[in-house]
Amino acid sequence: MYRSHTCGELRDSHVNEEVTLSGWVHKTRDKGFVVWIDLRDRYGITQLVFDGERSDADMLEKARSLSREYVIQVKGKVIERASKNPNMPTGNVEILVTELQVLNEALLPPFTIEDQTDGGDDLRMKYRYLDIRRNPVKNNLIFRSQVTMEVRKYLAGQGFIEVETPYLIKSTPEGARDFVVPSRMNEGQFYALPQSPQTFKQLLMVGGLDKYFQIVKCFRDEDLRADRQPEFTQIDCEMAFAEQEDVLQAFEGLIKHLLKNIHQVETGPFPRLTYDEALRRYGSDKPDIRFGMEFGELNKIAQHKDFKVFNSAELVVGIAVPGAASYSRKEIDALIDWVRRPQVGAKGMVYVKCNEDGSFKSSVDKFYTAEDLEQWAAATGAKAGDLICVLSGEVNATRSQLSALRMEMAERLGLRKPDVFAPLWVLDFPLLELDEETGRYHAMHHPFTSPKPGQLELLDTAPGEVRANAYDLVLNGNEIGGGSIRIHDKETQATMFKHLGFTPEEARAQFGFLMDAFQYGAPPHGGIAFGLDRLVAILGGQETIRDFIAFPKNNSGRDVMIDAPASIDEAQLKELNLKLDL
Amino acid sequence: MYRSHTCGELRDSHVNEEVTLSGWVHKTRDKGFVVWIDLRDRYGITQLVFDGERSDADMLEKARSLSREYVIQVKGKVIERASKNPNMPTGNVEILVTELQVLNEALLPPFTIEDQTDGGDDLRMKYRYLDIRRNPVKNNLIFRSQVTMEVRKYLAGQGFIEVETPYLIKSTPEGARDFVVPSRMNEGQFYALPQSPQTFKQLLMVGGLDKYFQIVKCFRDEDLRADRQPEFTQIDCEMAFAEQEDVLQAFEGLIKHLLKNIHQVETGPFPRLTYDEALRRYGSDKPDIRFGMEFGELNKIAQHKDFKVFNSAELVVGIAVPGAASYSRKEIDALIDWVRRPQVGAKGMVYVKCNEDGSFKSSVDKFYTAEDLEQWAAATGAKAGDLICVLSGEVNATRSQLSALRMEMAERLGLRKPDVFAPLWVLDFPLLELDEETGRYHAMHHPFTSPKPGQLELLDTAPGEVRANAYDLVLNGNEIGGGSIRIHDKETQATMFKHLGFTPEEARAQFGFLMDAFQYGAPPHGGIAFGLDRLVAILGGQETIRDFIAFPKNNSGRDVMIDAPASIDEAQLKELNLKLDL
Repeated sequence: MYRSHTCGELRDSHVNEEVTLSGWVHKTRDKGFVVWIDLRDRYGITQLVFDGERSDADMLEKARSLSREYVIQVKGKVIERASKNPNMPTGNVEILVTELQVLNEALLPPFTIEDQTDGGDDLRMKYRYLDIRRNPVKNNLIFRSQVTMEVRKYLAGQGFIEVETPYLIKSTPEGARDFVVPSRMNEGQFYALPQSPQTFKQLLMVGGLDKYFQIVKCFRDEDLRADRQPEFTQIDCEMAFAEQEDVLQAFEGLIKHLLKNIHQVETGPFPRLTYDEALRRYGSDKPDIRFGMEFGELNKIAQHKDFKVFNSAELVVGIAVPGAASYSRKEIDALIDWVRRPQVGAKGMVYVKCNEDGSFKSSVDKFYTAEDLEQWAAATGAKAGDLICVLSGEVNATRSQLSALRMEMAERLGLRKPDVFAPLWVLDFPLLELDEETGRYHAMHHPFTSPKPGQLELLDTAPGEVRANAYDLVLNGNEIGGGSIRIHDKETQATMFKHLGFTPEEARAQFGFLMDAFQYGAPPHGGIAFGLDRLVAILGGQETIRDFIAFPKNNSGRDVMIDAPASIDEAQLKELNLKLDL
Repeated sequence: MYRSHTCGELRDSHVNEEVTLSGWVHKTRDKGFVVWIDLRDRYGITQLVFDGERSDADMLEKARSLSREYVIQVKGKVIERASKNPNMPTGNVEILVTELQVLNEALLPPFTIEDQTDGGDDLRMKYRYLDIRRNPVKNNLIFRSQVTMEVRKYLAGQGFIEVETPYLIKSTPEGARDFVVPSRMNEGQFYALPQSPQTFKQLLMVGGLDKYFQIVKCFRDEDLRADRQPEFTQIDCEMAFAEQEDVLQAFEGLIKHLLKNIHQVETGPFPRLTYDEALRRYGSDKPDIRFGMEFGELNKIAQHKDFKVFNSAELVVGIAVPGAASYSRKEIDALIDWVRRPQVGAKGMVYVKCNEDGSFKSSVDKFYTAEDLEQWAAATGAKAGDLICVLSGEVNATRSQLSALRMEMAERLGLRKPDVFAPLWVLDFPLLELDEETGRYHAMHHPFTSPKPGQLELLDTAPGEVRANAYDLVLNGNEIGGGSIRIHDKETQATMFKHLGFTPEEARAQFGFLMDAFQYGAPPHGGIAFGLDRLVAILGGQETIRDFIAFPKNNSGRDVMIDAPASIDEAQLKELNLKLDL
């Protein structure tokens, strides 16, 4: 038996017990006549004590020789500490060691196993197994495990069945960015790794398993933006005989369950915004509503004066930044520079200081009267002490620029509180999205999403106008889930494929099995998928997903710890009937 | 709202309620003046009734036009049935339909959706989404979901953390049979799909997460024997600061939890056999101990008489088949033919009938006296009425032949009861296994398994004798889990690699990261992995795994439903810097 207790377990009540502990040497303090060692394991730290009076001389010497991260086992008696440490759960006691065994030695780690010192990203990734010993990473992984368990508890409780769908599926040329897997037994043929189990979960609905879920790895071979991974985890869900409202209720329930059981936060019904409304009020289809700063459209009140920039703009829109009227000229100039950065892309910014005395000071004072500006303040909800920031130009671009500014100001003002959770539904997404480069429409969610009733006809005349039975669940400014009510009849699906530019042959080759299935009695169905990595990160009060993944890949899709991907040998290639073509 | 209740829900207590149901038309009975429809969903079947008196004429006509597997929605009133069906949970009631809507039409399915008619394997696999509508398959999938939930509940309750390890890992040439995945971003390089998360779970132990589990897909590109799948699911587990006894206790607890919570079966401590003992007593390292028929070794009592076959044999061993003394000459001849089939491979079989009157009749009466045969009966535990079957020859082959016969007889005698569960541990496996073809030893479990204390030295002199800290959990004659205490120091691991024929360079290239990790304070650790597909099948009282997998592949590794694997187009190959070489 390696241990009778963990290193996080011992309290006053254990005093005088003989215990056995195992763990890592976290820290050694050698005061000559006495040596203290902090022994660490997953559960905490317990102080060991050796001294010249009570300890065997050899053992004291051995204790002195231990370096950081040695793995040791000790036996000893729990005693009360002379000077207690109220900051540690085990801080009232220490172990007077009577036996000490080194279980394994350790080289000096390339970085210290402390909460704050991590040695930088490169070292952390190369020595991820050491990084995981650090509380911030360890606790994230434990947190993830708890969240997924709660997800499963809730969904199982609601009658959802977890079904494993295959990982070796069919490559779909349209689905580009598939990772493919050559088959040895089927010469010259390839499997693909799923980008999502979409078609399989729909087939399960056709198969009558009316409430499905799966926590499942998905794969996408795309150029990695920061904070994307080639393999990622989804909570994938589907329901049959379900309308949009059924899906929203079921999964609003899931998020409520998580907030309640993970954070003891009770949440009322989630706000719902249409896609159009979200863009109008927040400039984003994933608005962070933990704070206000809603958009005020100023076209009617700011146009048709003498300010040409606004008169020629498709949209004039502003937000009121709380308390920022006190910004200096220099600070405001910096803000203007900020919105003009290429990443944001605004041409400039008009501002209005709403002074505490009720007066206004703006960058456009020569075009607008105080009465005009009072209207601006009303439209943006500005109060005395606020700074109104106004952008103008083409609708979509301007909204997106002002949304970026809104998020930036919220960040600066500390309004994006990690322990506040503000979920909402965004509904009625467009069915199709115009690809500016190719001029072709493609499915905004995916080709299986159903249009709103009666809008199928619009596909020919105004494809961009068609709205879908599609919804996103947004939490703290992040899309954590998205889904739709699916098409469930062959004809509509064929029409969709046609409008997405598939020839009937292409549609047949790629999705024939699904269209066949639709002929044998497909029930109405719909679902949703959550990005687990991000959901867990946000629930954990963090913005980046990487430290909620045990062994993440870097931005080139490499695992630097195991050094993958790597070359494979000729024989293996030959068995797969492949040749490199570099 | 598509339904107020499911089709398995309505009882007497619902009589007179107005309800809405949705589902599939399971069966229609048209008696002219009255039409009954069985409406089916995941939860059961509810009878709908339409008649000339109470139903609208148009609706009656519409009801008549419905074919099997149409998806419909009905509204109506729950009424008491005139003739109740006690075999159906909903058999006391029916729905007098007032509204009927066809949600989707259906072609006539290629096989009937009934428990017994399945259309044969090929059709079932091609139309798996229809096959899943059948109770036997549907119930298996639901059962699997329940079992995995119980696995997670138990392990989470024991403090195990579920950690997801990567799917895109490094290809190891030694690990042959890796599926590889070409990387687009890393030209000419490949990931591999994991055959198991073995090294990652060991790294998690180095990382201090001392109780890990994961229910995870694993991949092996091997020629498929019947009932193997290229992708399969494991319950993968590892513990640090754990001795073999700790691992056995933890996972004996898991199986007990499953038997109790799934089948309400309480189990005492699991029997434990060493590998050697299992072979000696049952001729198998995964004995089915639901029944007796233990091996009786007869060398001492049957050799050195005049029967040359036995005298020249390394092993003479028999079993007593209960009640089979009544076999006719013809039946016994058939049994002898059975053991001589190439799949079993015995040269012949000696038998002894233990007659009810206490006399014996054997095929070797001229060599052995009744007193001799009485000794045989004692050694095999044969009672009056039993048939002793004796095989002889080389030890391993003979044991395996007699084991096959033992299983066959148990099958014929109905002793392999699917609702009886007899788990046991098999311990002390050999560390190495001789590959007869190459004459090389390879790891019986895997190269990370630790030898028994003090046996490392034997590796040079008698490698086949070295026993490992390795164990299997066996249930009803199937290995459902296997594991070991691992090597946790770099030197022992290097010695193992050397003995397995790795050069230091090969070992470094493939497992360098693990050996590096072992230098930074690796704790003692060990674990186990269960084959979930098989575990679920056996708990479900079945022998084949295929119907516990939603979308299995056939023996050529093909998914015939989606027709994968398949060719990919030239452009995609080019992006991956690959050429076919057929």
